[in-house]
Amino acid sequence: MKKDLLCALAAGAVLLWGCGPRQTEVIRSFKVAEGELDPAEWGKAWPLHYLGWTSTREPSASGLSRYKRGYDDKKVCDKLSEYPYLALLFNGWGFGVEYNEPRGHAWMLEEQVRHVDQSRMKAGGVCLSCKTPYASRLRQELGAAYFSKPWEEVHARIPEKHRSLGVSCSDCHEPTTAGLRIERGFTLGAALADIGMDRAALSPQDLRSLVCAQCHVTYNIPKDREQRSVGLFFPWKGAKDGKVSVETVIAHARKTPEWTQSVTGFSLGFIRHPEYEFFSNDSTHWKAGASCADCHMPYQRTGSYKISDHRVMSPLKNGMRGCIQCHPETKEWLTERVRSAQDRTISLLNRAGYATATAAKLFELAHAERDKGADIDSALHDRAKAHYEEAFYRLVFVGAENSVGFHNPSEALRVLGDAVAHAGKAEALLRQALAAARVEVPVKVDLQLAKYLEGRGKRKLGFDRNVELQDPFGTQASF
Amino acid sequence: MKKDLLCALAAGAVLLWGCGPRQTEVIRSFKVAEGELDPAEWGKAWPLHYLGWTSTREPSASGLSRYKRGYDDKKVCDKLSEYPYLALLFNGWGFGVEYNEPRGHAWMLEEQVRHVDQSRMKAGGVCLSCKTPYASRLRQELGAAYFSKPWEEVHARIPEKHRSLGVSCSDCHEPTTAGLRIERGFTLGAALADIGMDRAALSPQDLRSLVCAQCHVTYNIPKDREQRSVGLFFPWKGAKDGKVSVETVIAHARKTPEWTQSVTGFSLGFIRHPEYEFFSNDSTHWKAGASCADCHMPYQRTGSYKISDHRVMSPLKNGMRGCIQCHPETKEWLTERVRSAQDRTISLLNRAGYATATAAKLFELAHAERDKGADIDSALHDRAKAHYEEAFYRLVFVGAENSVGFHNPSEALRVLGDAVAHAGKAEALLRQALAAARVEVPVKVDLQLAKYLEGRGKRKLGFDRNVELQDPFGTQASF
Repeated sequence: MKKDLLCALAAGAVLLWGCGPRQTEVIRSFKVAEGELDPAEWGKAWPLHYLGWTSTREPSASGLSRYKRGYDDKKVCDKLSEYPYLALLFNGWGFGVEYNEPRGHAWMLEEQVRHVDQSRMKAGGVCLSCKTPYASRLRQELGAAYFSKPWEEVHARIPEKHRSLGVSCSDCHEPTTAGLRIERGFTLGAALADIGMDRAALSPQDLRSLVCAQCHVTYNIPKDREQRSVGLFFPWKGAKDGKVSVETVIAHARKTPEWTQSVTGFSLGFIRHPEYEFFSNDSTHWKAGASCADCHMPYQRTGSYKISDHRVMSPLKNGMRGCIQCHPETKEWLTERVRSAQDRTISLLNRAGYATATAAKLFELAHAERDKGADIDSALHDRAKAHYEEAFYRLVFVGAENSVGFHNPSEALRVLGDAVAHAGKAEALLRQALAAARVEVPVKVDLQLAKYLEGRGKRKLGFDRNVELQDPFGTQASF
Repeated sequence: MKKDLLCALAAGAVLLWGCGPRQTEVIRSFKVAEGELDPAEWGKAWPLHYLGWTSTREPSASGLSRYKRGYDDKKVCDKLSEYPYLALLFNGWGFGVEYNEPRGHAWMLEEQVRHVDQSRMKAGGVCLSCKTPYASRLRQELGAAYFSKPWEEVHARIPEKHRSLGVSCSDCHEPTTAGLRIERGFTLGAALADIGMDRAALSPQDLRSLVCAQCHVTYNIPKDREQRSVGLFFPWKGAKDGKVSVETVIAHARKTPEWTQSVTGFSLGFIRHPEYEFFSNDSTHWKAGASCADCHMPYQRTGSYKISDHRVMSPLKNGMRGCIQCHPETKEWLTERVRSAQDRTISLLNRAGYATATAAKLFELAHAERDKGADIDSALHDRAKAHYEEAFYRLVFVGAENSVGFHNPSEALRVLGDAVAHAGKAEALLRQALAAARVEVPVKVDLQLAKYLEGRGKRKLGFDRNVELQDPFGTQASF
């Protein structure tokens, strides 16, 4: 009887496991070929996701986000008019000519091709690194020349029908299962190696942030002696995941000069949209395990499918859907909380911006007077310069980050507070140096903002006072 | 039959409502008499609450709160050693002599009677306003003289057995039902009227914060020409509930000089522990409807009773019990979040403190040089003074608030960022004025901290370097 039982069990096991289908397989009418970059082809296999992605081209309604008005009502928002002190500080290269609030993903490359002042692509082919799904291919084909060749020349190597195609399916997904992947080995891949992270060990939840971190990070473009771009790297070396601090980012920026600031004549590095670094550095949402996609690509129901919203956008513009998944409060209540943090960021950003711009104008004055023979104390000058640069980079860090502080409110305000402290010290030492050299300085330094804001670039862009972001607390008026 | 039914129903109604006891009544063996201030009497009626209250006398274990070490391991923590720049800034009156981290409620009056340097009670009887349950009675008996009479004289009017009795039952509860009440009509009562709040309309949840706001607020003590205290008020006029901003508090402080700062010679107002104002001004916990008692007096089980924990204390010292009622995360996770906000506060507090102290020393130098005949530009001086005072009050606001920023993290950092901005501007204008007058100023101003920290008061208190709170981000070292 024991034997019979064993036989019956064995037969049952064969029936249950041995003769069934080996593995569940989703039947797909379309398969995406390895190396396929055309989103229309991917769209045949994943039409709903594709539809979401195409809608990143659409404008948003105005008034939903108080401070991020990228393409509200089909208007492109001039960031230099929003933050006028940036026009002064960025004068000397493309960012000081035209710098707009970003529109949706679908606009990325088209923006470069048809819209933004061409001075913005002066660094060369390197400027395509986030803008086209062909970037890795171009990098591989051209070798180091990819970085330095003129933008137009590298751009012309993209197949004609995709010369306006921005980030798309293949940048985040692998073609067989649409699983997430890090496509930009030459940028993020290298950065992960710099902080000792094993790409093979990343969880799906890690990837729901890291695919975004392929572009939503700051980067440096090192130059050769002829000021040609020779590479692109993320300033992560010396840090670890969840702790790429503003201090680390600044240390790298200081060592990687990319441009010369007109007002001061200083050779400076730069910081761009450090969303991943800022969010992952001790923010509450990061610590709670939230990924970028959790908030910016909340799940939505489309017919009988549940898919993540591929119209990646601010929850503020999206009925706070990303927020109410976890938070039981009303969307009005949650919106008010976001605004509370952003209002404070804008207030201190004003303080940091005007203080840094004031110091810049004092350097301009000190340099002009020195050229005329005034005896500007070089110890005071150099100490002021060190403080000034620390202020500048902190200001740019928060100013370029695309959440107006919300991704990490306390960190934003810490960084801005430090920017204010450094700028104040720079101003103090400069006023002393100037006064000692018998140069008069008024209490309120004239920033000559019109000079930097009016008549910018080929299209003679001007100062749009309607979009200027005033201090919501009114404190800036005391300075 | 219809009539019979009606009769039966009527009889039932009589049985159910008419003949039963009119109202449920808790039978208490002890009743507390109207006007009873002795907590031991109250304790007969509410022994468990009384027991909790008496345990506010106990020390805490060290290491639980990184920055609030009030009575950890039975050590009283010297706040002037923790924040050495405060010793410089408060030099000139009692706060600069001895200023300690607070111990539990039971210590309040005993601290004044037996421990703290007597210079702290120089303002007179007014200093008893929060420290004894007899305050309202004394105020009523003595009239305006209550404020100005020497502290010893007013204190001596308290019955002998209660001359060390701190805040107790009657300060928050009415004796019949132990319902919450605002006992301090002459302070909080007046302040509520100032902002148009109807005391009769307060909800129990309002009172769970407002009973605390009888003392955990800042206040001003106006003086007459002979520097005698003539009153005590909360600086709420012109504000509204949930919006008593630091700006409003400062406007009142500036109009109510209370002391003369030694280093600068300036006549200044003051700001004390503005917990209620700070917490209620747009903090997330306040907006979520949390009261002071929700976090600091979490419900606890004692035998078969559920009572609020009357050992009022920081959740950090209490196993995060207040937090885990609402938050599903572990207490370690939650503790780390509190520390993250507090670390940032301490970092910027260092910046604001040293920048303000530096400006103070430059005023000292400018005044000394002016006395020796130097031509210090008075326009620059006066403008610097205005900025300096704005910095000073903001620094004191956050420094005196007892949560190290946690009650409202973004607001703490906004206020400190503004303090840094004002202090930096003051320093800048002073360096200019001094240099123009041919006075040398080193890059790093010597604050002479030992001068302010060593040998303080009758007990010759010194600088305890072991408790100094260093910038957790190390940023202060660059200044």
